[in-house]
Amino acid sequence: MSTYDLTVPAFLQILGALSGILSKADAHCKAKNIQPDVLLSARLYPDMFPLTRQIQTVCDFAAKSCARLTGSEVPVTQDTEKSFAELGQRIAKTIDYVKAFKPAQFDGAETRDITFPIGPSNQMTLKGAQFITGFAFPNFYFHASIAHGILRHNGVEIGKRDFLGVK
Amino acid sequence: MSTYDLTVPAFLQILGALSGILSKADAHCKAKNIQPDVLLSARLYPDMFPLTRQIQTVCDFAAKSCARLTGSEVPVTQDTEKSFAELGQRIAKTIDYVKAFKPAQFDGAETRDITFPIGPSNQMTLKGAQFITGFAFPNFYFHASIAHGILRHNGVEIGKRDFLGVK
Repeated sequence: MSTYDLTVPAFLQILGALSGILSKADAHCKAKNIQPDVLLSARLYPDMFPLTRQIQTVCDFAAKSCARLTGSEVPVTQDTEKSFAELGQRIAKTIDYVKAFKPAQFDGAETRDITFPIGPSNQMTLKGAQFITGFAFPNFYFHASIAHGILRHNGVEIGKRDFLGVK
Repeated sequence: MSTYDLTVPAFLQILGALSGILSKADAHCKAKNIQPDVLLSARLYPDMFPLTRQIQTVCDFAAKSCARLTGSEVPVTQDTEKSFAELGQRIAKTIDYVKAFKPAQFDGAETRDITFPIGPSNQMTLKGAQFITGFAFPNFYFHASIAHGILRHNGVEIGKRDFLGVK
């Protein structure tokens, strides 16, 4: 499998699904007269990221992983989103960014050394293949799943099909 | 990337990590005098799977995905686990099962038609590559992440490094 086929469609599927999930959460707030910030700032535990940061992190793992695998400049984001609409725009921009990569840009990425930060002061180097399966994917899916879990925990009516982006 | 290299190490990494997470949850119960079943039956929402079923589902996605990709007989499991020790054994058996596959068994899997059940009465057919990135991986990581989220939500002191299985 080419590294492009392995990564880009997977990122796009879950980003698109998350966009749909956030629309349902927004509609849930309107229907139940819930202030959106109650959900946007919800966490599963006090020292875990709130929903907004989970979504921002999913976007970053998709965008930055594509950048690192292709040797492109790693995009810097400001994380200023404060509403469902703004988070939707962040996801849309991330989808556009990921979609703009061409398959050829990923040629040879599986054997290339990828150096990336882990935590605030360390970095690690892995071959592209290990970077994808050992770091990029588990982190990307983790934050998407926890975002879904936060909304489920708060009563938003979404299910596994919403997580997978299946109609 | 070969389909084996893409899938088997990814499954083994997270299964091993989950085993470590469950050991920490078990130790947490002992230290805090919590009945293990309180955590084993914990859910993020009433109509979501409890922890035990999340772990069983992670194991199934790893084992059954390998079986389907290689055209092997899909293993049937009884889901009888009732303790952290039994769940640990379930994970260990799953690790052994996944490890027993040889890379050559996955040759050509990326273009093979994979037919699999979705829900109790439907099935779907995807090419192996799409089966992995569009179905097997997101489901596998989803249930592993939610298992982690259930334990975090209940105060077990684990973090992202535990999820990734990084020492």
